[in-house]
Amino acid sequence: MKRLEHGIEVELVEVAREMADAARRETLAFFRAPGLRTENKDDGGGWDPVTEADRNAERAMRRVLERRRPDDGILGEEFGATDGCTGLQWVLDPIDGTRSFISGVPLWGVLIAVSDESGPLFGIVDQPHIGERFEGGFGTASVVDRHGRRELRTRRTGRIGDAILFTTFPEIGTPGERSAFERLSDRAMLTRYGTDCYAYTLLAGGHIDLVVEAGLHPYDIHAPIALVLAAGGVVTDWSGAPAHESSRIVAAATPELHRIAVEVMAFQE
Amino acid sequence: MKRLEHGIEVELVEVAREMADAARRETLAFFRAPGLRTENKDDGGGWDPVTEADRNAERAMRRVLERRRPDDGILGEEFGATDGCTGLQWVLDPIDGTRSFISGVPLWGVLIAVSDESGPLFGIVDQPHIGERFEGGFGTASVVDRHGRRELRTRRTGRIGDAILFTTFPEIGTPGERSAFERLSDRAMLTRYGTDCYAYTLLAGGHIDLVVEAGLHPYDIHAPIALVLAAGGVVTDWSGAPAHESSRIVAAATPELHRIAVEVMAFQE
Repeated sequence: MKRLEHGIEVELVEVAREMADAARRETLAFFRAPGLRTENKDDGGGWDPVTEADRNAERAMRRVLERRRPDDGILGEEFGATDGCTGLQWVLDPIDGTRSFISGVPLWGVLIAVSDESGPLFGIVDQPHIGERFEGGFGTASVVDRHGRRELRTRRTGRIGDAILFTTFPEIGTPGERSAFERLSDRAMLTRYGTDCYAYTLLAGGHIDLVVEAGLHPYDIHAPIALVLAAGGVVTDWSGAPAHESSRIVAAATPELHRIAVEVMAFQE
Repeated sequence: MKRLEHGIEVELVEVAREMADAARRETLAFFRAPGLRTENKDDGGGWDPVTEADRNAERAMRRVLERRRPDDGILGEEFGATDGCTGLQWVLDPIDGTRSFISGVPLWGVLIAVSDESGPLFGIVDQPHIGERFEGGFGTASVVDRHGRRELRTRRTGRIGDAILFTTFPEIGTPGERSAFERLSDRAMLTRYGTDCYAYTLLAGGHIDLVVEAGLHPYDIHAPIALVLAAGGVVTDWSGAPAHESSRIVAAATPELHRIAVEVMAFQE
């Protein structure tokens, strides 16, 4: 992963943490609170839930950027793209896993990444209810929780038969995407569902081995990419091409396991 | 739910909490620790994972009972049944959700119930990593976490189209069980997977509306039943009969929603 001048790296990490703190306050004010209203923002007949918590958290993060990094670009799930002139773009998902959020399940996350044209440079995946903040990029990956800070490292799984595989929806993607996923799932030791961004934190922490998803947007994936790469994992799209502009992600604990996953899925567009 | 003499209720709650504290220490020593070995205890060709953490936690809970309530019966997932002579039985699952446990997902729980021939009287669902302890029975339901203690109450959902439904496996049960579940899932607002016992805590807390499961054992369900009933919910088997000796559970936020769920599933043995 690309490095920047030290002073800039320090500043960007500081700004990202300030944004995560701001989003934590806004999301926790609504999580498990009675009467949270859910709206559907999918015009195409599907269901893409959004709440006041999503909007307030993105607004709070944008306020931090207006003050601290007004010349950087922004791409946010709720309020779209804002141009910048520094070559850096903040890629924000105020609540990844809104279905978990509205159900009270504490596996949603606030996603914050700072990226350039090469991809994500540094990212935060924050789980405010549990109080876990996962950070990766600029040469290090770590988690901070109430016990302190610990380094994150993917584990050394090389065989698909030993691998724990995660994805968000059992009904993943298109029929072709689903077949490819099932080829992989059939060979994994264990497949689990429903974790959204939290799965990437488990991969970075060395607890699971593969995360495979389809139908993603850049704001879903920039922060997780930064985290997994910094922890020693491999992330690409399903054909092995760069991940950060794709909707289909395969993230693996090791290069060997990644190569096997891409081969077994044998996905054709 | 049945009540006992006040002094006995106080003692049983105290003993249950002491057991939960003991199990918390044993499980946290292994959760997300490197090198946790998983064994398969299913002789029938399936996969039923168990770890040293499961066994140590059940042993620690049994030690509390040997000291504090040596004449009560015990039914534990890992070490089976121990006869008693008081009419009370402790029903224990040291780690409900071993698949989550071995994957690092903090939605497993320690289940502790004290039951008599009428069913569960009081139960605890403890999530040690998040630090949430859900308790229900003897006239009250509450959660204790790092913010203190709060009462739990199911919400007042009466329409299936407004309901959030949870189950553990998308590939739930036998083909007949699966069809019944899918009839219900098709009419719910949202279906989510993979939460094991944690789903019942969300139901008790008023965040979701239905939990429907098959293939359960008594130790999976006694503590959740106590919790959901004490929070104002309804729990039966899929035909509306008493739940605590069944393998098929429907737990609902309200009597109306429960009646609809049983009717829509229209399950035939």
